[in-house]
Amino acid sequence: MDKFLELSERVSNFIKEREWEKFHNPKDVAISVSIEAAELLENFQWRDDEEVDKMLEDRNYLNRITEEMADVMVYLIVMSNKLGVNLIDIALKKMEKNEEKYPVSKFKGNAFS
Amino acid sequence: MDKFLELSERVSNFIKEREWEKFHNPKDVAISVSIEAAELLENFQWRDDEEVDKMLEDRNYLNRITEEMADVMVYLIVMSNKLGVNLIDIALKKMEKNEEKYPVSKFKGNAFS
Amino acid sequence: MDKFLELSERVSNFIKEREWEKFHNPKDVAISVSIEAAELLENFQWRDDEEVDKMLEDRNYLNRITEEMADVMVYLIVMSNKLGVNLIDIALKKMEKNEEKYPVSKFKGNAFS
Amino acid sequence: MDKFLELSERVSNFIKEREWEKFHNPKDVAISVSIEAAELLENFQWRDDEEVDKMLEDRNYLNRITEEMADVMVYLIVMSNKLGVNLIDIALKKMEKNEEKYPVSKFKGNAFS
Repeated sequence: MDKFLELSERVSNFIKEREWEKFHNPKDVAISVSIEAAELLENFQWRDDEEVDKMLEDRNYLNRITEEMADVMVYLIVMSNKLGVNLIDIALKKMEKNEEKYPVSKFKGNAFS
Repeated sequence: MDKFLELSERVSNFIKEREWEKFHNPKDVAISVSIEAAELLENFQWRDDEEVDKMLEDRNYLNRITEEMADVMVYLIVMSNKLGVNLIDIALKKMEKNEEKYPVSKFKGNAFS
Repeated sequence: MDKFLELSERVSNFIKEREWEKFHNPKDVAISVSIEAAELLENFQWRDDEEVDKMLEDRNYLNRITEEMADVMVYLIVMSNKLGVNLIDIALKKMEKNEEKYPVSKFKGNAFS
Repeated sequence: MDKFLELSERVSNFIKEREWEKFHNPKDVAISVSIEAAELLENFQWRDDEEVDKMLEDRNYLNRITEEMADVMVYLIVMSNKLGVNLIDIALKKMEKNEEKYPVSKFKGNAFS
């Protein structure tokens, strides 16, 4: 099976088995995405880019970061399932928009031209 | 091809073609995840659950929300590519942890027992 | 002495005594404001308005919330001191703008008219 | 009058005159603090410390930042008024805790010792 579908179903089953659907209104799930994003950001606080690059060689540090990324991802999937949309499809659609909005000819090498 | 892989490569090519890699240090990408998460949350501000449910029947409102979800997703992929990890794999690994941490027998129907 | 000035100086001395100025570039302080705001928000997660109102009667819950509010406030002051501005003055100035932007005649009872 | 008190009353009157109390449950105000904090952070995105320092000499850039700081501050005051606490008092109390938690002898020059 498609790996993303596998993940999506696993998240869905996790919630169903625990009967947690009742907690998961879209507003609270959006709050969760935001809180997990802040926890991801916390790993970079007070560190400049060089320090971060050096720390990323440490497997424990990398694991803390990927776990927080995973938390954001899981809540995005909870929300997708809630809203009946496919996260990959909406992201592909957004990339199409981005490609039009930022034509290579105009934005090559410059994010703010 | 696997749809997630297609998305992941599309994001990666988008950045390469515009030569934007230089902007994308992990700390700034984490900031972006956080800002996009706040923009997602903004759609739920000052509205109670009932109002949200009613508004979700409006396609324009739903589109605004899915676009913000897509933005969070795209930055998660930028970060994954940057760190050399697979977003689906780390999320599956986290689900395994969650399943152990919250056994059904103890947490069924109750998130805080 | 003016109580806000007392607070502002206390924050300033706290940092000087520990020689922490070197960590406090504006970007990292802005990250801190954002992270503390998320920790404040965490106290309201998965709870509807009624539950929150009931929990606010519990002194421990109220204390957790006011401590997070204090953390946001302290980082706002760190940033003000850093930028050489007075937090009260800029907030008064913003209120003036808000009063013009949202005239009572038009917005009474309706935030989105 | 004490300037903070002046600000606090001005925020309180602003809301009363527009009859906006009904929108301001603590959870939504906490969401607002978080969203305004993200808007503050947005001004620092994709810029390293040197670029920020240089940009801060531009009055327009500084104004954008202080306006977002003001927005965070105003919502903190809305929440304080809602909860019946004094923002300055709770911040002074938190500073007392911080001073105990981070003794100068141990933390001088080092945030993580």
